Order: sequence, then C-alpha cells, then structure tokens
Amino acid sequence: MVFISEKEVAEHNTYQDCWVIIHNKVYDLTKFLPEHPGGVGVILDQAGKDATTIFDTIHPQDIILRYLSPDVCLGEVDPATVSKTSNVEVKRHYEPIKKKPPLNEILNLFDFEAVASQLSAAEAWSYFSCGANDEISYRENHNAFHRIWLRPRVMRDVSHIDMSTKILGHDSSFPLYITATAMAKLGHPEGEVLLTRAAHSHGIIQMIPSFGSCSLEEMTSAREKGQIQFYQLYVNKNRNIARKVIQTAQENGCKAFFITVDVSVIGRREKDMQIKYDGALPNIIDENNENDNYLRRDQGASGVAASLIDPSFNWNDLKWIRSITSLPIVIKGIQTLEDAILAAEYGCDGIVLSNHGGRQLDFAPSAIEILPEVVESLKKLGLFDKIEIYIDGGIRRGTDIFKAIALGAKAVGLGRPLLYAMSSYGQVGVEHALQILKDELEITMRLSGANTLADICPEMVDIKNLTNHSITPKDYLSSKVYKRLVPRRSNL
Amino acid sequence: MVFISEKEVAEHNTYQDCWVIIHNKVYDLTKFLPEHPGGVGVILDQAGKDATTIFDTIHPQDIILRYLSPDVCLGEVDPATVSKTSNVEVKRHYEPIKKKPPLNEILNLFDFEAVASQLSAAEAWSYFSCGANDEISYRENHNAFHRIWLRPRVMRDVSHIDMSTKILGHDSSFPLYITATAMAKLGHPEGEVLLTRAAHSHGIIQMIPSFGSCSLEEMTSAREKGQIQFYQLYVNKNRNIARKVIQTAQENGCKAFFITVDVSVIGRREKDMQIKYDGALPNIIDENNENDNYLRRDQGASGVAASLIDPSFNWNDLKWIRSITSLPIVIKGIQTLEDAILAAEYGCDGIVLSNHGGRQLDFAPSAIEILPEVVESLKKLGLFDKIEIYIDGGIRRGTDIFKAIALGAKAVGLGRPLLYAMSSYGQVGVEHALQILKDELEITMRLSGANTLADICPEMVDIKNLTNHSITPKDYLSSKVYKRLVPRRSNL
Amino acid sequence: MVFISEKEVAEHNTYQDCWVIIHNKVYDLTKFLPEHPGGVGVILDQAGKDATTIFDTIHPQDIILRYLSPDVCLGEVDPATVSKTSNVEVKRHYEPIKKKPPLNEILNLFDFEAVASQLSAAEAWSYFSCGANDEISYRENHNAFHRIWLRPRVMRDVSHIDMSTKILGHDSSFPLYITATAMAKLGHPEGEVLLTRAAHSHGIIQMIPSFGSCSLEEMTSAREKGQIQFYQLYVNKNRNIARKVIQTAQENGCKAFFITVDVSVIGRREKDMQIKYDGALPNIIDENNENDNYLRRDQGASGVAASLIDPSFNWNDLKWIRSITSLPIVIKGIQTLEDAILAAEYGCDGIVLSNHGGRQLDFAPSAIEILPEVVESLKKLGLFDKIEIYIDGGIRRGTDIFKAIALGAKAVGLGRPLLYAMSSYGQVGVEHALQILKDELEITMRLSGANTLADICPEMVDIKNLTNHSITPKDYLSSKVYKRLVPRRSNL
Amino acid sequence: MVFISEKEVAEHNTYQDCWVIIHNKVYDLTKFLPEHPGGVGVILDQAGKDATTIFDTIHPQDIILRYLSPDVCLGEVDPATVSKTSNVEVKRHYEPIKKKPPLNEILNLFDFEAVASQLSAAEAWSYFSCGANDEISYRENHNAFHRIWLRPRVMRDVSHIDMSTKILGHDSSFPLYITATAMAKLGHPEGEVLLTRAAHSHGIIQMIPSFGSCSLEEMTSAREKGQIQFYQLYVNKNRNIARKVIQTAQENGCKAFFITVDVSVIGRREKDMQIKYDGALPNIIDENNENDNYLRRDQGASGVAASLIDPSFNWNDLKWIRSITSLPIVIKGIQTLEDAILAAEYGCDGIVLSNHGGRQLDFAPSAIEILPEVVESLKKLGLFDKIEIYIDGGIRRGTDIFKAIALGAKAVGLGRPLLYAMSSYGQVGVEHALQILKDELEITMRLSGANTLADICPEMVDIKNLTNHSITPKDYLSSKVYKRLVPRRSNL
Repeated sequence: MVFISEKEVAEHNTYQDCWVIIHNKVYDLTKFLPEHPGGVGVILDQAGKDATTIFDTIHPQDIILRYLSPDVCLGEVDPATVSKTSNVEVKRHYEPIKKKPPLNEILNLFDFEAVASQLSAAEAWSYFSCGANDEISYRENHNAFHRIWLRPRVMRDVSHIDMSTKILGHDSSFPLYITATAMAKLGHPEGEVLLTRAAHSHGIIQMIPSFGSCSLEEMTSAREKGQIQFYQLYVNKNRNIARKVIQTAQENGCKAFFITVDVSVIGRREKDMQIKYDGALPNIIDENNENDNYLRRDQGASGVAASLIDPSFNWNDLKWIRSITSLPIVIKGIQTLEDAILAAEYGCDGIVLSNHGGRQLDFAPSAIEILPEVVESLKKLGLFDKIEIYIDGGIRRGTDIFKAIALGAKAVGLGRPLLYAMSSYGQVGVEHALQILKDELEITMRLSGANTLADICPEMVDIKNLTNHSITPKDYLSSKVYKRLVPRRSNL
Repeated sequence: MVFISEKEVAEHNTYQDCWVIIHNKVYDLTKFLPEHPGGVGVILDQAGKDATTIFDTIHPQDIILRYLSPDVCLGEVDPATVSKTSNVEVKRHYEPIKKKPPLNEILNLFDFEAVASQLSAAEAWSYFSCGANDEISYRENHNAFHRIWLRPRVMRDVSHIDMSTKILGHDSSFPLYITATAMAKLGHPEGEVLLTRAAHSHGIIQMIPSFGSCSLEEMTSAREKGQIQFYQLYVNKNRNIARKVIQTAQENGCKAFFITVDVSVIGRREKDMQIKYDGALPNIIDENNENDNYLRRDQGASGVAASLIDPSFNWNDLKWIRSITSLPIVIKGIQTLEDAILAAEYGCDGIVLSNHGGRQLDFAPSAIEILPEVVESLKKLGLFDKIEIYIDGGIRRGTDIFKAIALGAKAVGLGRPLLYAMSSYGQVGVEHALQILKDELEITMRLSGANTLADICPEMVDIKNLTNHSITPKDYLSSKVYKRLVPRRSNL
Repeated sequence: MVFISEKEVAEHNTYQDCWVIIHNKVYDLTKFLPEHPGGVGVILDQAGKDATTIFDTIHPQDIILRYLSPDVCLGEVDPATVSKTSNVEVKRHYEPIKKKPPLNEILNLFDFEAVASQLSAAEAWSYFSCGANDEISYRENHNAFHRIWLRPRVMRDVSHIDMSTKILGHDSSFPLYITATAMAKLGHPEGEVLLTRAAHSHGIIQMIPSFGSCSLEEMTSAREKGQIQFYQLYVNKNRNIARKVIQTAQENGCKAFFITVDVSVIGRREKDMQIKYDGALPNIIDENNENDNYLRRDQGASGVAASLIDPSFNWNDLKWIRSITSLPIVIKGIQTLEDAILAAEYGCDGIVLSNHGGRQLDFAPSAIEILPEVVESLKKLGLFDKIEIYIDGGIRRGTDIFKAIALGAKAVGLGRPLLYAMSSYGQVGVEHALQILKDELEITMRLSGANTLADICPEMVDIKNLTNHSITPKDYLSSKVYKRLVPRRSNL
Repeated sequence: MVFISEKEVAEHNTYQDCWVIIHNKVYDLTKFLPEHPGGVGVILDQAGKDATTIFDTIHPQDIILRYLSPDVCLGEVDPATVSKTSNVEVKRHYEPIKKKPPLNEILNLFDFEAVASQLSAAEAWSYFSCGANDEISYRENHNAFHRIWLRPRVMRDVSHIDMSTKILGHDSSFPLYITATAMAKLGHPEGEVLLTRAAHSHGIIQMIPSFGSCSLEEMTSAREKGQIQFYQLYVNKNRNIARKVIQTAQENGCKAFFITVDVSVIGRREKDMQIKYDGALPNIIDENNENDNYLRRDQGASGVAASLIDPSFNWNDLKWIRSITSLPIVIKGIQTLEDAILAAEYGCDGIVLSNHGGRQLDFAPSAIEILPEVVESLKKLGLFDKIEIYIDGGIRRGTDIFKAIALGAKAVGLGRPLLYAMSSYGQVGVEHALQILKDELEITMRLSGANTLADICPEMVDIKNLTNHSITPKDYLSSKVYKRLVPRRSNL
C-alpha cells in the first residue's frame, strides 16, 4: 500500500483532478465525479480533503467497494502528515432535538412534516422534500387525491374491520409498504435500519433502497423472523456489478426486485441545488468576472449517473434479469398505460405506478390519476389478474389509501412521510405515523360501509373530476417574479 | 351506600384504572373510557378528581343513569374527606360578553359566526366549528352552493309570497328545521331549551339531539302548545336501552325519529383535538423520552362509541324499530343515491342527505351536490312521492334554501349557525338569525318570480357546474408545510 | 298652512311615529318609512329633525310632490322655534379633492375606481360600489368576460375603423350608452346633468334614472340639440302616478322607456348596510340588553318599496303602458332566455340583459354569460331581428364591448365606472373614461381585423369556457370566519 | 447647412411644434410625433432639447435616415450657442451591477428574471416585461403550458440524445431560435450584437429585429461564418422604404423574412405607461384645473405607427413581397387556424403562432393553446407538410419546448428571457440561459423515452385540459380596487 502525504492530496482539488480521503484511503474520483448521483458539487467541495465525516453520513461503508473499480484507490494517507483539524466534524442535524411537541399531540402526517421542516438540518430537509424543477408534479401527487370524492354507504354492519392483505403473496397488516428512499441517515443517525424495525412492529413490508445510507447487510440483519423485505434495484451499466447486486440481495433474503426505471438521468431538483449554494460551502467562483468560463457545479443532464444507473436499460434486458433470479420482478416507475401493458406482456409480477415522488420529471402525471386508465386497459386485455399494481406518491391520509384500493391498487408505497417521522421522533415516530394511517383507513372503511379491502369497490369513489385539472399547483417562480399591474393610487 | 375517601379516588387516575366523582357519587369509568363519544382525553384529565363542573357543562344530569349500567357507581365520596379546592370552577365561556356589535348590526349568518369565533371559549368554538381531518367536506358543504346559479324570472306578480310548508305533515313557517346538535351548553348556559323556545317563536320544528346537554324532558317540557319536535336517534348496541330511548321520546311527544346512521365511528376532528392539547390540561407525557410507549389520548378509531352507537346497525334492524313505534322514521346521513333508494324501498318516511356537517368522513360529498341525482333516481323508480327529502350542511343564505327547494328538497336542516347565534346573543340572536334567513328566502323568491315553494322549480337554478369541482377547498395542512421554491434573489 | 314648533317635531322620532323637516315643511313619514328605497335607517336617523341637507344631497326637490300623497305634509315648521344648529351641514364628499393623479395619468377605468375609492365619502363609495349579499354576482359580472378569449384575424386592411352604430334608430358614436344610476350627487354636486353633458360631448345616449338626484327636467334641460335621452321607468303601484311619470318623460323629449323589472324588492346590499352602522349615526340600541326587542333598521324584505315599485307588475301590464305611449319599450333586467322570448313575443322593442349590476339577487347570472343562449333562442324562433339586445354589468374594457358585440349585443350600458370618473374628476373625467373605452375598442377592432361593428362576428371570440365557472368569486365572509387547520408547530 | 441656435430650438417644445437635437442636427418631429412607436410622451419630454443621449440608448444611428424623409432635418445646431449642461448624461441602467448571485447559482430562467427585475433600470424592466392591458394574455402564455402534462415512456435505451433540427433548411443545435426584440440596449450597452454572438456560440439562429437598437449592419457584421440570421419585417406604408428594407436585409445575408403582422396598431402596455409617469419626467399638466383640456400623452389608438407599420397590409400584398425576394417568407403573429390555412394557401414557407408576447391584444390566445387545432386543420387539408410552424410566447422550461415539439411545432422562439439574462450577466448569461434550456430539454427527452426530436410524438403529452381555462390569470386591477365584504367584528 502506497502512502501519500496530506499535502499532496490537497493539490488535487479541481474538477479536472479530484482526490479525496475516506477512512484514511486516498481515492481519485475524477472520472467518477460527473456520475455521482448526489451531484458534482458535494464531492468537489471535499476535493483534496478528508471527506470521511460527510461520506459516512450518507453512505454505507461498503459502497465504494461495491460500485467503483479498485484502481480508484491510490493508497493510504500518510498518518504522519495528517493535521488535527483536517477532518472537522460537520455540524449534523441529529443533535438532540428539544422543543418539539409531545408525540401524542401529533395528529396527522403533516404534523410530522411541520416538525421536521423546523428541526431538520437544512440539507436533510431540502433533500427529502424537494421535487423536480417547479415541483408541479411533486405537489400534484398530493392534490390529485383531492379530486376524488367518496361515496359512503351507510347502515351496514361494520363492527369488524379487516385491513389485512397480501403483497406478492406475503402478509401485510394493511395495504401499505415502506418504499425505498435514500440517505435516511441525513434524518436520523440510525438510518434505514430504524425503518426495518418499525416495519416489523406494524407487520408491513419494507423495500430496501439501492443507495441507502445503511448497507444491504445492515438492513437485512435487522430483519426479524418472518419479516419480509423487497429490494429496489437500479441496474448498473456494468452487468457484472448488476449481477452481483441482484445475487447479494437474494442471498440476504430479499423476496422481490423492484426495478426502478424512472431514473435514466437524475432530475433537476432546484430547491435542493439552491440549498447547496446557500450553505456554508465556499464559493470558488469569482463572481465579478462575468466572462470567466464558470464551472457548472450541478453538471447538467448528460453525464450524471450514466454508469450507476444504466440509461440504456430496456425491456429486452428483462430476460437477462429473469435468467439470474426467479424472484418476482416488479417495474417501479410506470407512468403510462402503454408501459403498464408492456410490463404485463413481458411477464412482470407487478408494477408501481410512480413518478418518483415528483423528483424526476416535472409534469409527469400522478400515479393516482393514471391508475383508473391503467386498470381499465389491463382488464380489457385480460391482463389485470396477472399483475399486481401498486402506487406511490402523495399518500398522506387514510382516505388516500382507500381511494387507491377502490381504484384497483393492491397497496401503496410510503416514503417521505416516514422520513419526516423518523427525523423528528425516531422509531416511535415512524410507528405513530403508521398507526395514524391505519386508524384513518379503518375509520374510512367503517364510515364507507366496507369491512374488508375486497369490499372497497370502485363505486365507493367518485372520480369524475380526477382528470380535470386545468388548475395546476401554483408556479411560485413565475408568480414571484411577476410584478403586478395595480391601479394608480400611489400618489394618494 | 358505600363511602369512599377523596384520597382513595385520587389513586385511580390512569387509563387502566379511572375513577371520577360526579355530584358526590364515585364512578369507575375504566371500561367506558374508550367508548366516550367526547374522547378519552377529556375524562382522563379528570381521573381521580371531582368532575362535576365540567360534566354539568355538557351533559344532562340523567345521562349516566340512561346510558351506563348501575354497577359503575361505586358509592359516595366521603364528605369529610373533600378538600375545598377540589372542584374548582372551570372558567366558562358564558361570562357576560362585552364589546359585541349591537344585534341589529348583524346582517347575515357569518356575522354571528365572526362574533362567536371571537368571544366563545376556545373549546366551544373548536367543538362547534370543527370538521373531520382536513375539513375538506366541511367547507365543501358551503362551497357547493356557490356552484349553483339562479335563473330569475321577471315580470311576474310577486306581491304575495308564501314560504310555508309541511314537514312530515306538520306545519312549518318556512322550509327549515333546527337540526340536532350536541353540547349546546358549551355555547350558552341554557343549552338546547333556548333553541326550543326560538323554534316556537318562528313556527318551525326542532329536532331534539340524542346527546344534548339538556335532557330530553327539559327540551320537551319547554315545548309550547302545538309546537312540533322530532327526535334524533342513535341506536344503542344494547337494544333494551335503545327501546327505552325510543319509548321515552315518543311518550314525551316527539313526532318522528331521525335515525342518524353516519356515526358508526366518530370522525377524527383534528382542530378540536388540537385545542384539547393547547388548553390548560397538564401534559402527562415526558416529551424527552422518545421511546416511551406513549398514551394515545385521542384513542383512535376502533374503540370509540362502539356501544353508545351500534356499528352493526343495518337495514334489517329497521323492522325492529318499526315494531316499537308507529311514528315516521327518517334516515339521517344518506350520502348516495343507492342508499336513498334503499331507504325508500324499506318504507322510510324520509331521508336527510347529510355528511354530518363534514364532521365524520372527509371527502364525503355535500348533500346539495347529490340531491339532484338522488331525486332523479327516485323519480325514475317511482319512489319520489313516497319519501320526503331533507338536506343539511352548509346552509348559510336564503339562496341556499331556495336552491335546495328547487332541486327537490322538502326542507333544510340548520345546525351550527344557530349555535353561533345562541352563543353570542342568546335566544334573540337565534331568532334574528332565523329572521335573516326568512328575509333572504323571501327576497330570493320575489326576485325569482316564485310566489310559493311549489313555484320554485328546477328551471330556476343552473346546476351545470355543480358536480364540476376539480378545485377542492384549500388544503391548509399541506400548503402550510410546503416550502415554496422561489427565485434566487435572496442575496440582493 | 299650519305652523308646528321644532320641539313638537322632535317628539315624533320613532319608528312608530316619524316626522322630519325638509325645506321648512314638516312631513309625517311614518307610513312611508318601510317603503323608502334607501332603507329605513337613513330616515330614522333624521326622525324629529331637519333633514334638508341630507335630503338635498341625493334627491331632486320635486320628488316628494311626485311620489308621495299631499297629506303627508303636516305644515311648516315655526321659524321662531328653529334653533341655529338644527340643520348642521353634513360633511360632504365633494369638498375640493387634492392629491389625486393628473387625469392624463389615468390609463384605464380601474384607475378611476381606485381614486374614487380613496377620495369619495364612505357613503358614496359604499352606495356606488356595493352588490347584493356576498357580492358574488357583482364580481362575476366582470369575471365572466375573462372567460371569453379573442380570435384575432391578421393581414386585413384595418386603416379605417368605424365604431358608430344606431340604438333604437338613433345615432351613437360607439356601441355604448350611459345607463341609469341613482344618486349621482353623492359623487359630485352637479349630479346626473354632468353625465348629460358628457354624453353629448361623446355623441352617445344617456338613460335618465327614475330616482336620480337631479330632476327629470334638470336632466332634459341640459340636453343639447339633437342629443338623445331614454328614460328608465319604475312602474309605480299607483297607476295615476305611473301614467304621469310616463307622460312627463315623453313630454320632456325622452325617446324610449327602459322599464326596469328586476327590482320587485330591493336587494340586501350588506356592504352598504355595514357602512351605515359604522358611520357617525348614533346607536339607539342598548347593546347590553340582549332580550330587548331590537329594531331592525334594515327592515328586511317584505315592506320595502312596495308602492314606489309595484311588485305586481307583469307582462299583462305592458298593454296598458303601450296604450299610453307609442315610444319604444325596452325591458331592462331580463335574466333568462325564457323571459327574452316573452319580451319579443309581447312586442317589446328591446331588452337589456342585466342583473342590475349585481345589486339585487346574488347568484343571478351575468348578462354576458346568458347572451349567447338568448341570441341562439331568439334566432331559432325567428325573433332575433325584431328586438334589440343590450347588456350591462361588468363592462370595464374595450375588449368587453367587443365581446358583447361579437355575441349579438347591439350596445352595452355603462354605469358605475362613470360615477367613479365623475366623483374623482368631474365631467372631464367622464369624458376621459369614455375616450379610454373608445380607444380600447378601436385597438381591439384593428387587432382583430374588424373595420366596422358588422365585421365583429361570433367567430372572433372563443366562448367555450364561458359557462364553465365552477370557481365563483371568492366568498370573503365564509373564508374570513374560517379558522384554518394548520400543522402543530406552534410550540417551536 | 443652416445653423440654428439652441435658443431657437428651445422654443419649439410643444405637441403642435416639436423640434429636437440629435447628434448636433435639428429635426422637426411634429408630424412624426403621433407615429412614434415608442409613444408620444418620450419625444415630447425632449422637445426643444438635445435628445442625443436618450436617442442613442435605444436606436441605431441610421434609423432616422432609414425611416424618415430628409426634409425633417432643418439644419445643425449652432455650436457657439450650445450650453455645457444641455445634453446631461441620463443615468443609465448599465452601470456596473454589483451584488448579484454568481452565475453558476442561476438554476433556471426565472432566476435571471428575478435578478433583472431587481437590478435593471425601471424603464428597461417595464419595457421588457410589460404586456397589453391587464396582462392576461401575457401571463396566460406561460400558464397554458401548465395545462399540458407529460406521458413519460420508460425502459427505452436513452443513452444517446440528439436535439438537433433544421429550420427552413438551416441547422440548429436544438429547436429554438432567438426571436426579434427591440431596444436591447436598454438592457445592455452592446445591445443585439451580443445576442448574435451568443446565438453563434450555441449553434442557433437569430432573428434580427426591425427596430433594434443596433443597426442591421452591426448585427449582420457580428455574424460568424456559417451562422444563420433571419430578418423580422415590419412593412412600411411607403413601399419604397419597404422595398429598400427588404433588399438591404437580403444583401446583408439574412436568410428569411419573418413578416410581423400583429402590430397594425401598438397595444396599450399600461405598466410601461405607468412607469413613464412615475419617472423623473416633469409633469406638464396643471393637476388642479380639472376642466383644462388635458394632453393625452399616450396618444391613444388611432395615430400611432400608421406609417412605420402599414395597417393596410394584407394577404394581397404578399405577391408584391414575393416579387422582390425569393427568400423564404414566414408570417409571424398568426393567432387562428383560419389564418394559418390562409398562410399555407398563399404559399408562405412558415408561420409563427404568436400573440407578440402578450404585448398587443389582451385575451389573444396563447400560441401553445392553438397549436393543436392549427396542426389538425392543416393536416386535414393536406397542407401540414408545406409549411413550418413555430411558436413563441411563455417558453421558460425545457418541458415547454418538448410540449411544443410534441404538438407539431418545428421550433420555438425565445425573447424576453434572453433579454433578462443579457441585462444581468451579459453574453455569458445568455449562453448560460440557453444551456439551461438545452439541459432541461435533454433531461425531458431522456425521461420521456425520446432519443431524437422525431421521437417526440403527440402521445407523449396529455392536452385534455389545455383548452379548459375557466380560470384566467388573476386580474389585479379589479381585485385591487375591490373592497372586500368582511364579517362585522371590527368592534371587537
């Protein structure tokens, strides 16, 4: 192992030549830089420095081994050269949080979000809460549920309510699973394993993220007996890596693969990008010299993630995946009925209607809006019974779950709200959030005259206004820059 | 009669073991706790204490005898042990109210609401004004009327306007009755009997609430000669109690039963729940210990009211009720045309289209929106003439009443606005509120060219936009937690 | 002539017994009180006093002779008894106004309204600007135009634009007339005659109001040679008075009668009513005594104006009017196609689609919305060429006029905006307002490719969204009293 | 050459007699005054003075020679008579701008607009940003895109994205051209040539404005080898001038004529007019004398621009233009399918659907809304392949471009956003703005499953709500003057 001095590392601190120290190892990340899913800027800010602290915050320790080729590791930093202050502790969000309301006063999922928005570190909040561009789709996901009304039936015996279901054959106490979300450690030091424990306590299924801040092994080890976990799969361009990822997940007991197909490129999440510039990061651009060729730290569209997530991945590649595993395959990120039909025709076991929480392509439709037309199309083609349909995005209320079930979904995925609950109250917060949804769904079933999920029929919802949304979520960028024309009374 | 010391009572102060003193009697409410319609929290706050004052504020004295089994009474508190300060007078809302506008300046029902919102005790205002969850349905009830426009006919002789009608055969000076609302004493010390007197002075019918803060006898005794009262019925799980309730109401001269069927469980009224935590009640949770198993004081969905209001009550039980009474039976809380048809087929005398003032199930449709389709369905089936249709929810204007009549309603029920009028001005306030509505309806009839209620035909309203509500009432929870994406000029 | 002492007059100062002094004469207005179009309160405030100043502000001097029977005059006030301070000058709006923008900076009709709203006396502003109840129709009148889009044709020779037209055979420089509005003196000391002069200077027609603050003779005397005036007619219950009104108008050279039929009762204009209570008027109600029988000064619906405007007036009465005059008869206040057809069948010469500026019945449709269906119906029945159609309400822009013409209107009536222009800048203001509209219409015609009014065809407007208004003007009363449910972070 | 004293010039300072000095020459602009595209006021403020500075700011030096007849030049100002202070430097906008965010923090086009709105001179901002009248169309242009949703296809190989296209046969790196906008020097001292250079650096086409602040020759000289420029043509009433303009543009290498046909008269841009009055310009009206005949400085509709832009220009004139040039002819400003068909039938090579950025006729439809019906009509008539369709107005996002392409546009024109980028950051700003749009379009294509522009098909967008806009952009004039009716609790 070669020893490299801290001073030498410090000289490789540019976009064209970028070294960093992580756990005393020196890595040359120059080639990897444009493909970093978290963006160029965050690495560049650590260029030439010891990045261990910030790395550990959001990555499992084995991630470099898993995704990068061995030759990026140049050697070890020479301990004799390391200054004491080089790896300053980044002020983190998970200091003990005071002054939050007692948990039993949290009445709905928005209350968690409000607490998290106040108490989280700015970068955690912005990463969790952001959407693509104007965040139209992000907010539409929630709004769309508001265009569905209920048709409650009365005078039925609703003494006994049963919310249990099966997802890909596995029991679930109610029709909801924890969907994959990255970087949970931004919100809580324990990260995703905390969600694993909460999922067990409620008898629901967790989908393990590809880019979690805990390692796959940490998450599967936290699994209790009988507990079910699925695996969210991003297909690496290097098929050997991809194969290893699939096999490892399977060996660790994951019961299905949810291939995420809506990230052929990472969307522009401007609120998150704003935060990066507003933070304490130094400004390396001379702002007075307009004509300098400025570095675009967000790095735009083309380069990012081209190897970690293969942009060439397509239907034909399914055969190869099927050849490696016999576990159920679910396509996550379907956004049109055409692709839903293709998924069924290609023999997939399920689909998740999803626009990735509005984080990818602004103006992508909400899952709940396209659910009825997807179900209708599949039924017409005799494919509805061959495939399970889940949706995610915008779920905040028990009525939202009820509406999804009524329209043909098998279950819904929940992401952000649990991160907010986790960030503000830890595991007990996540469990409370889930309990609120259970209670809300139970009340909705009771007041709608449905004893079991099978009783929740399409006639119990009114969707005649669902696709009528001439009003989109407010465009704050344009409305904020618009200077109003007001009557002339300024002199008065 | 056993004597129990105040000190002993004080030791039974937990969710698992809850005694309270009411009018010197000691009750063990442990089993009743989860079924209390007003929620667990409010009793738990009195656990181990003398609850007489708060009890009297909202309950008639006989309610314990009527609804609970005798064995919950353990004995009497030993007077020798009672400390002077144990039953502190709760600071009530009905102190003399100063600084309100003179009554003759109150021009519409919103003016009353504004005064009440400013001057009522927080818990009265929150109890009266709250709706379920996001309060979408609560506000939709009012908004829906705004999607109906009028088609005024001119050049008709409108010298004489007659607004009188018959409800279940009984005279009413105009097509409105006072619907049942609980806990009127929160707003005024006299409670529901004040409404009885106001109803008489205006020649309209009052519906007596099951869970009024005055007793049935108080309300029926306040009745003047010839005055008509109906009875709102919640069917108790214990059919003996249910039978007794029905017989007592009948013996006390009530002329019809309005069976409320939209409360198989009590809805989550979060604004009201918020107020409870914001109040002076002590916080019994250690907020710094996240992992403690916290007590959920709102107690969620399953347990509440399972015996006071039987969740198994269904169409087949109507036969049993019909066997006890020959009075007209009206089903209150119908929300779909399917159930309206069932009610007619089961021989009910009337239905109230209602979502319980938006207090039960958020996204339940407004009564006025479904009225046209209910009427059309019943007409098609030849059932329209066999059943009277009333609606409640959101009525605030004479034009609202006009619209309901035009679309086929026999009359409308009014609840909250009268509580606001009562809370702020007492009986004369209620009478003024009713007079405003009468005046508004009369003007509307005159300006629409209708001399009698029979002249108010469907052609006088334009409902082409009624069911088009892609815009729902604003979702303040989600919009409040959303952090807007705004242009970068913070540096400027 | 009897002499009455000021002291005796002062004793008749109640609703049951109400005398006032006007120009030294003593009148017993007790019987007239409930019929006063301006409301009970304003007279009651003068009860027992000398009301000359306030009377003169808004009434022509001959109005008492014209509308009341002679026996209401009891005699003259004894001059010897009159105290110096009895007829205090009311502080009026038409003091010289400073600090307004130069007229040439007024760019549109809203600028006038803004100035008027700032500088007018509160009672003038509230009287002019108010609408009925929630003012939904009042605002809808303007909003409805916003649901019509233009379809501009290009590459046409638009060197010469001709906006002239004929209204009932009389020339008009552009398709607009000044409609009748009462009480112009509230805005300007010269009152309606100022409008007469402005109409002449622009070559347009003025409609003379029945209840103007100038007398008929004043307005007709101000007429220049060749200038045309129409007469707005309210039909008095006393047909002798009605006949005399008609004959006098005719003798004074009015060229048509616009019978206003949408005021069978006066609408509740709550904003105006609010102002009355907020003013300096003394409060005669003891606000601490809730149970006192309070006097309702607005006096509600039934009594008002029952003789001044006959509520029994109907289609059959047209024959009688036709028997008195051979001038054209136009029905003003048509709001449905059914009544438009009736008017044509009864041989009327024209109709004004109007909801009286939203001042009468809230939720009455805007004229522009019903114009297309009225035109279509009349065309189908072959009646379109037999009757001229005008509209009023909400006209603020040249594009509004253009839209009305495209949809079949012969001309539009303009009311409030001219009162605002008059109140803030006098006659030159009115002329500027009219010039702005002319300029705007001319630009619109030029940019739409229409050289004459006849070129403005239905294809030049897009009305596909016109009747789609699920969103009504905001309901400020309800939204203001609603207390929002917001997330729990009040502790933070 | 005659010499004229400064004193004599100063005497010709009225609307009826208006001389100005420009570059030492004395011009009599009296006749030209009402035709000045920039309005009467701006010249009148310089009447009798040396206007060189303000003239140079927004005009190329040769514009007088080009558009006015030689006899308006009366001679030269006598240098001996010129005072030192006569030509005071107007405080301009393009002083060095401090305190703006570094360019690499500008994440979208709105960020540029926000910076420009804060840092530009008021008159530059108001001129660039204003729209006609209420600015309904101006804002609708942007909003309309929000009513189009995407239908993203997944699991396609999107490794390689190609955004290149051909416009009238010329290469363009992506489907966007810089459209003609006047007076760029208001925003940056270099003016339009800066856009020429930026266009080249991005490989896109620039449309040269007729009324640019740089001369035609300056803009064409700045062209690099192989770079393409089109010419925006306003047809002068004097056909000799028109012919010369066309020939000069052709001789200077412009490759197509975009005849702008939506300015037969200049729209009322009230926000811009407001700014003029709010500025430092002296007030020449005595505001206390209401009855004075005031001068209308905006000069209204009729006179303006009647010779510079011929209002009689029509389809028949196309033959004449075709006789002069064989370059492609594109009609810019088409707003209906009828005119689109006419353009195709008249053999035009292209059309620009445009409402002139909402600056001309309020309520003119947005280009994107009419695009689908235009395309459908042309296809039905077999004309679609004979003509290229471009749109402009409201483009702010890559998704906007994607939507336009999907619906049949060949390319989009971009105007204002580049002026904002130029005003705040100069050429590098313009290039950054273009790069952002490129990145956004590329991401959109990738996430939608389209590798080339030809892959972007109508099925990739959802336009079912496009024409449903019962809600128009907010009307701030009317909503600002409206005084809300609120409940009576002002006393409380």
